[in-house]
Amino acid sequence: MKMPTEVKIIRSPRSMQDICLKLRARGKTVGLVPTMGALHAGHMSLIARARRENDVVVVSIFVNPVQFGPSEDYLKYPRPFSIDTGLCRAAGVDMLFAPGAAAMYPKGHKTFVNVEEMSNVLCGASRPGHFRGVATVVSKLFNIVLPSKAYFGEKDFQQLAVIKKMARDLNMPVKIVPCPTVRESSGLALSSRNSYLSPSERGQAAKISQALSLGRRLFHKNKITNSARIISSVTAVLKTIPGVRIGYVKICDPATLEDIHTAHARAILALALHIGNTRLIDNSILGDVVN
Amino acid sequence: MKMPTEVKIIRSPRSMQDICLKLRARGKTVGLVPTMGALHAGHMSLIARARRENDVVVVSIFVNPVQFGPSEDYLKYPRPFSIDTGLCRAAGVDMLFAPGAAAMYPKGHKTFVNVEEMSNVLCGASRPGHFRGVATVVSKLFNIVLPSKAYFGEKDFQQLAVIKKMARDLNMPVKIVPCPTVRESSGLALSSRNSYLSPSERGQAAKISQALSLGRRLFHKNKITNSARIISSVTAVLKTIPGVRIGYVKICDPATLEDIHTAHARAILALALHIGNTRLIDNSILGDVVN
Repeated sequence: MKMPTEVKIIRSPRSMQDICLKLRARGKTVGLVPTMGALHAGHMSLIARARRENDVVVVSIFVNPVQFGPSEDYLKYPRPFSIDTGLCRAAGVDMLFAPGAAAMYPKGHKTFVNVEEMSNVLCGASRPGHFRGVATVVSKLFNIVLPSKAYFGEKDFQQLAVIKKMARDLNMPVKIVPCPTVRESSGLALSSRNSYLSPSERGQAAKISQALSLGRRLFHKNKITNSARIISSVTAVLKTIPGVRIGYVKICDPATLEDIHTAHARAILALALHIGNTRLIDNSILGDVVN
Repeated sequence: MKMPTEVKIIRSPRSMQDICLKLRARGKTVGLVPTMGALHAGHMSLIARARRENDVVVVSIFVNPVQFGPSEDYLKYPRPFSIDTGLCRAAGVDMLFAPGAAAMYPKGHKTFVNVEEMSNVLCGASRPGHFRGVATVVSKLFNIVLPSKAYFGEKDFQQLAVIKKMARDLNMPVKIVPCPTVRESSGLALSSRNSYLSPSERGQAAKISQALSLGRRLFHKNKITNSARIISSVTAVLKTIPGVRIGYVKICDPATLEDIHTAHARAILALALHIGNTRLIDNSILGDVVN
């Protein structure tokens, strides 16, 4: 294991790219973990895997303005940079790429990458432009860091599907590595946005993973394949959360994101909801046997 | 000078990318000349420059379906592949990347790159989706061939402007190298589409460069800076071509493509027209003293 020493902090996209071009020309493999910071154990599991699989590990921390809607939480999104730096150092990260918004989107930026259709459903339906913003910034990060592998959490499963599709459609020379969602002991999926929850909201949020478990049980043990019936039972559990607003509960294809009416084991049970002002998402492979 | 030997023909995007990833890992520089084939002396000037400036030269030949409109000339676009191969061999090209349409756009392709605003003006106004198709295929070619430099002709000046903007906005690790338009002795800019012209149309097409020369003279010698006056004189010359349909005559900014009302030496005088069924474009820097 690599000893925790210094992590090099790089702010300039051009400098980062120059370093990575040189690493590539020397035959080194680079693993990239793109994040918006506020690192938690989910991110750390991506970093640990990147550390095992690459010569050089780059973590990017960039709260990407173009993936936030005008009424969303861009300004209040947590930015505990020095804590994040310490976590990266301890995890043996080589370089932390942390550009400013003006360096990533200079005045007059006009170019966007869009994965059509897949960007307008599920979370995209209530967050117009969000996945266009995600695809654009990930394209930029890939061009700057030139990773051979890039690591993404399965919690953001639509993001993962959009990025996989983008990488394949545009022949990006990078392997997209999905990593399992990390959960609290209560079952709550780790998310930087969990910090917005009050203690009582946090307690209630445990019902999200209980609802997903119920969905899996209905499919597995009760052999229910009618998606509408599973969705309605899952929704009923979520509705017991005080002050909840449900965005969607869907059963869909993991690659195309299209609705699946007769459920099968590879289908994704996905949901989005607000508890108070906090938007949370979670998902599960329907055939997953874990609990 | 490298002796003309064999040129390796590669059809598969994956194979091409594997080769180029290995070249990059060995520190080699790759120069890419993206073309739609039907190579002429304009293309050959790009190839010659790429040959001088890179360890390895890749020419791509791909008639890109997504940049053609439904009523355009995708099917009849010339495809003299064995002649093109001979020209590449003679010019010392190392690899010719010539994928099929299904290899580049497998069923279900959904991802597009768009340089907003710049894609809807000038040629883009009458060719909706054209520059989105260009930006998308060039992104794909860059990801497959991983060039350090890519060469584009100035005849297609809007394409060049869109690609330069895309490369900058998305931090693509490639230098875009513009190369001067090559002309027949009559002044006609070389274009693969010139082959559509009848002998008499070809004679008339010489008036295009005469009209551009007039525009430059009005600016240079007559000190006219009112763009509308220059445009009107240029248009008058073009109208003497029998059967002409003028698309546009514009004076615009070379980087943003915005109209310029008071002309200056760096402005671009650009035009598009049909002679019979053949669409031709040409342009000139207004302050260019040549001729």
